[in-house]
Amino acid sequence: MRKIIVIGIGAGDPDHMTVQAVNALNRVDVFFVLDKGTVKQELVDLRAEILRRFVRDGSYRVVQGVDPQRDRTAEGYVEAVDDWRRRRADECERLITDELGDGQTGAFLVWGDPTLYDSTLAILDDLATRGVPFDVEVVPGISSVSALLARHRTNLNRVGAPVQITTGRRLAEEWPAGADDVVVMLDARNAFQHYVDEDVDIYWGAYLGMPDEILIQGRLSQVAERIAAERAEARDRKGWIMDTYLLRRTGHREPERDD
Amino acid sequence: MRKIIVIGIGAGDPDHMTVQAVNALNRVDVFFVLDKGTVKQELVDLRAEILRRFVRDGSYRVVQGVDPQRDRTAEGYVEAVDDWRRRRADECERLITDELGDGQTGAFLVWGDPTLYDSTLAILDDLATRGVPFDVEVVPGISSVSALLARHRTNLNRVGAPVQITTGRRLAEEWPAGADDVVVMLDARNAFQHYVDEDVDIYWGAYLGMPDEILIQGRLSQVAERIAAERAEARDRKGWIMDTYLLRRTGHREPERDD
Repeated sequence: MRKIIVIGIGAGDPDHMTVQAVNALNRVDVFFVLDKGTVKQELVDLRAEILRRFVRDGSYRVVQGVDPQRDRTAEGYVEAVDDWRRRRADECERLITDELGDGQTGAFLVWGDPTLYDSTLAILDDLATRGVPFDVEVVPGISSVSALLARHRTNLNRVGAPVQITTGRRLAEEWPAGADDVVVMLDARNAFQHYVDEDVDIYWGAYLGMPDEILIQGRLSQVAERIAAERAEARDRKGWIMDTYLLRRTGHREPERDD
Repeated sequence: MRKIIVIGIGAGDPDHMTVQAVNALNRVDVFFVLDKGTVKQELVDLRAEILRRFVRDGSYRVVQGVDPQRDRTAEGYVEAVDDWRRRRADECERLITDELGDGQTGAFLVWGDPTLYDSTLAILDDLATRGVPFDVEVVPGISSVSALLARHRTNLNRVGAPVQITTGRRLAEEWPAGADDVVVMLDARNAFQHYVDEDVDIYWGAYLGMPDEILIQGRLSQVAERIAAERAEARDRKGWIMDTYLLRRTGHREPERDD
């Protein structure tokens, strides 16, 4: 039986690696890399550094797959996503069946935590549905959300209160119902700007745990422009950006019982 | 200047420790322990094992504080929480000012991730407001949420969809608005049982990462009774339980764009 380990490697700081993740790296025969054509050399180098630093012998192979492009102009959006997902699964099936011998262990390294806004597990589910035989193991990682809040030294939630994790696209449509604390992922369009007139604090971070890390927090009305400007400047300068933020509606809330 | 490090030590498996957390442990002069009177020896032992295993020299001290009891019968709930929080801050202030010399580093070890449903950061904020002078550093940890989903090999979110993290108390009142995927923390009363007649899957776990770990997943209507029974049996047998779960409303959802 082949084995696939999906390993969370943390938000960007190699020191986010857990003992469990290091041990997992050392059981791997083949690392699969499925980079988008646009992936930046800096991230490729960082992943290579993690392998160099934490794998005790150098007997592994790294196999590069081709991440299919998604048709972002397609009329039928659902069909386009389904098609893209099917082609990614095709590529992963090819990698696993062609490159991994019986009894061998392959791995995908995932930034942050593999269970949070990452598609690797869904693709492996698709392959299982197709009848491709392999076992799956998942190693949790430090998510960008945990890294963000640690750097800002603030809690994700307020006492007994709920938190919503959502996308920039959804936040741009409306403030999520039922939560005053909202973590936003995958926001390419500064959706926080829709709320500058409300009583909201923001805790924003980019390149978390990396040498170029940027942290900004404050009253949204006072820092929104600065975040947008620094975000645009950094993305232009480096050619890529990974960022996330917490929006916290202020004003009185009664604490909730947590028992 | 004194320094306090709040260190996430993971959900229960010592292998959840990150390189960053191990390095932080090794900079600490005094570990502060603020256990509830009811804390179980098993957790005390596990924390001691983490220190034994990861601290390279044994020159640290462990100082035990007294975690004040909360008045759970109080008429004024808000006042009771405020009072409890004030007394916890009093105890932490005493520990820091009495036990930590100038230029020394103290630490609180926190299960899971220190930014998710843990009160340590809020207490340190209170002390800062009082003018107690110290620097704070936060080291993120593998949360019980990441550990749960890794063990179930499933994503927290569906493609582009939001997730709500909430408490058992709130879930018992109503299903959170605006999310079909809900993570429930601090549920002492099996709030999932309110939804057994709905189209919901559950991914439940207790003692995550520990030798006694229990994992159950399936259609809520089919496994709710088994979870309640295993939970009660385990809690009786061990004298304590730490558990969490994801509820996932099924039925068709259109995928969302994530760009």
